[in-house]
Amino acid sequence: MKVIQKPNNARGTRDFGPKEMALRNHVFSIIKKQFEAFGFQAIETPAMENLNVLTGKYGEEGDQLLFKILNSGDYLSKAESSDFIAGSKVLMPKISEKGLRYDLTVPFARFVAMNRNEIAFPFRRSQIQPVWRADRPQKGRYREFYQCDADIIGSDSLVNETELIALFQSIFQALGLKTNLIINSRKILTGIVDALGAAELFIPFAVAIDKLDKVGWEAVASELQSNGFNLNQTESLKRLFQFEGDNKAKIQFLSDFLAGNTVGQEGLKEINTVLTHTALNGFDNSNVIFDFKLARGLSYYTGLIYEGKACDLPFGSIVGGGRYDNLTEAFGLPNMSGVGISFGIERIIDVMRELNLFPEIQLSASKILMTYFDEIGQSVAIRISNELRKNGIASEVYPDIAKIKKSFEFADKKGIPFVGVIGEQEIKDGTVTLKNMKNGEQNLLSISGLVQSII
Amino acid sequence: MKVIQKPNNARGTRDFGPKEMALRNHVFSIIKKQFEAFGFQAIETPAMENLNVLTGKYGEEGDQLLFKILNSGDYLSKAESSDFIAGSKVLMPKISEKGLRYDLTVPFARFVAMNRNEIAFPFRRSQIQPVWRADRPQKGRYREFYQCDADIIGSDSLVNETELIALFQSIFQALGLKTNLIINSRKILTGIVDALGAAELFIPFAVAIDKLDKVGWEAVASELQSNGFNLNQTESLKRLFQFEGDNKAKIQFLSDFLAGNTVGQEGLKEINTVLTHTALNGFDNSNVIFDFKLARGLSYYTGLIYEGKACDLPFGSIVGGGRYDNLTEAFGLPNMSGVGISFGIERIIDVMRELNLFPEIQLSASKILMTYFDEIGQSVAIRISNELRKNGIASEVYPDIAKIKKSFEFADKKGIPFVGVIGEQEIKDGTVTLKNMKNGEQNLLSISGLVQSII
Repeated sequence: MKVIQKPNNARGTRDFGPKEMALRNHVFSIIKKQFEAFGFQAIETPAMENLNVLTGKYGEEGDQLLFKILNSGDYLSKAESSDFIAGSKVLMPKISEKGLRYDLTVPFARFVAMNRNEIAFPFRRSQIQPVWRADRPQKGRYREFYQCDADIIGSDSLVNETELIALFQSIFQALGLKTNLIINSRKILTGIVDALGAAELFIPFAVAIDKLDKVGWEAVASELQSNGFNLNQTESLKRLFQFEGDNKAKIQFLSDFLAGNTVGQEGLKEINTVLTHTALNGFDNSNVIFDFKLARGLSYYTGLIYEGKACDLPFGSIVGGGRYDNLTEAFGLPNMSGVGISFGIERIIDVMRELNLFPEIQLSASKILMTYFDEIGQSVAIRISNELRKNGIASEVYPDIAKIKKSFEFADKKGIPFVGVIGEQEIKDGTVTLKNMKNGEQNLLSISGLVQSII
Repeated sequence: MKVIQKPNNARGTRDFGPKEMALRNHVFSIIKKQFEAFGFQAIETPAMENLNVLTGKYGEEGDQLLFKILNSGDYLSKAESSDFIAGSKVLMPKISEKGLRYDLTVPFARFVAMNRNEIAFPFRRSQIQPVWRADRPQKGRYREFYQCDADIIGSDSLVNETELIALFQSIFQALGLKTNLIINSRKILTGIVDALGAAELFIPFAVAIDKLDKVGWEAVASELQSNGFNLNQTESLKRLFQFEGDNKAKIQFLSDFLAGNTVGQEGLKEINTVLTHTALNGFDNSNVIFDFKLARGLSYYTGLIYEGKACDLPFGSIVGGGRYDNLTEAFGLPNMSGVGISFGIERIIDVMRELNLFPEIQLSASKILMTYFDEIGQSVAIRISNELRKNGIASEVYPDIAKIKKSFEFADKKGIPFVGVIGEQEIKDGTVTLKNMKNGEQNLLSISGLVQSII
């Protein structure tokens, strides 16, 4: 007797059936089309990377969330029993040399470093592939999910930031999803801690204020204080962060606060330039909001940073990105400034589903089911089906000689909108009886008439 | 000082840069379009599967070629030192519970078993995703490669075989690649060993004759003999396999050889039916060749089998497939007959490259590069670029105020066919000077004139 398994997906992973794929492809195809309209060139990198490419790039927590692949064959051949006794961490490098892609940015940096001589810089690259993280699975958080990135690398011009903002606007306009784009500059954040006399506390500062939205000011203030900020400094920050006004007012206000602070002023100038160019880019940009509380946590950003959020749902950020200067340095290619934007495709799909923003998408891939009553009809149905396909009409042939009712039921269940029936008369006359499954209407048509009525 | 790594791909894996991606997408999009025309619905399954889903499905060699993923966290927590001492095989199940997808068929079977109540059968599913095998890398053999499958499951009708043959013809017609499709039936092979009185030797028989093309008859005969066939039997096989003739002659010849053999006659009848239907399917089917030497090695096939080969290159098979009856049984769903076809996409790309069958594909994603001489021109270039994109013209903005020569050189290097120049006069008049990079022609155009001339 064979062993029967109750089949299951690996924890934290999902299958995408035809219905889900239709929704996903709707979003992917819009994003791809806009990526192409902006001149981004698609690349793909392998799912597996050598661990020395991945490790140390995502912080200690990231290293732990990397999926590691067991070396093939006799993987223990390099391990000694002392390694085993020393435990998982010590044994690991002896038995695993590869890991699964954790994001698209590090593989992209490796790609750029390896292909520096062939690439024409600035290089506009797009990449849409799954990534894997050994996170604890929970609602909306998966161990396998797609990332969807566009970067312009090899130029420090702010024109590139402006281009990515236009890309953001194009994509969400095409998706029909109302969004805000929050922008800031890492240089402004640096200026602020400088001005407070706490330059050395930049990292805990960025980490703490990144949580402001989630945990509120009191929690952030106490985190800041436990990391070395004094009461005066946190009080100054509180006043600063309480400021309200439009983009222009915020720039003016900060310009005073950061008077004489070189890096801070530089950041403000960048924001100003990007906002000025953006205002003339042909989109309604009332959704672009300068917010100097935006930090984007621990990351490689060095200049402008931004985050996109859905207006009608408190869903966290659905887009992130910014300017980086040292991404390829770890791979031997310093001084390669770039700017990127990452569309949180899984969240965007969830938000669009929640807000009912998907157009009615035909579930079935076929537009017509061809059916028949006998062997001869079967052959005719196969041939007509191929003719319809050549005319761009997706078609399938019902597999069996059966009661006509069965094929109607099948078309109904699959959501196929038309059934073409080949009976004795139709075979004789070279015609097809077309049944519209929505309204029940039936018409006897020539093949060309059939093409005309359902194309 | 930072550690500089010489970056490398993991062994046996490849990056696909923009040029390679353009070729790949050409092939993928043609296949996808035909899959859709035939009513196949796309699904995706995760890269990771529980090992109990994968193990035992691909034979012992396959099990060894599965990439296993180390459990996350303290992966040694379930392992004892006796496991370590016992070696790699014993320790493995204690430290790894997941593996990487090895093909698309087993995950598909799991998917069907899990979703049996939602699926309308017969289910036409397509799936295009990478798979991973811990094979020794060599020319043309990679550890990560795409598979490209279409199956019709939940029906034993031969109409489905006929449909897959039409799909085969459509795809290679659209790709412009001349192919032969070799067909046979597992039932005929069973009939042949039955007729020889060697029914119990079916598996070594199928394994041996599968190599006929590669190693020749002498080697196959000696393998057959060492597996229990006697001299009489191998001599009969030799005579059988020497028979030459067209499809009709082969059927007649075999019909005599298999006189009174039920399963063999059943196989012949199937071949006959499929060839008869195929002859009327609207394609030129002179490339469909019945060859009763085709075996397709050790596999789950139970009925019709087929293999596609390029006519103009001795490249091995580029397509494979057949009828199976027990694919989902291991997952608790017996009696689910299906038939599938798998396009060897990596080999198809190699063959098409070798035969120069790719059309000229524009390398750059952008059709026009917008350039300028000053800040004001920059803003205008950004706006016009966005207008062009809205009109379906892929465009990018040169990032810097630079000598015009530099942007021309950049366009040249990237293969961008047009450059739009925004000078003082153009800003004043709302015009653009369009330079054709191929013939050097320059024209002063209005925005709508610009759209008209390059769309």
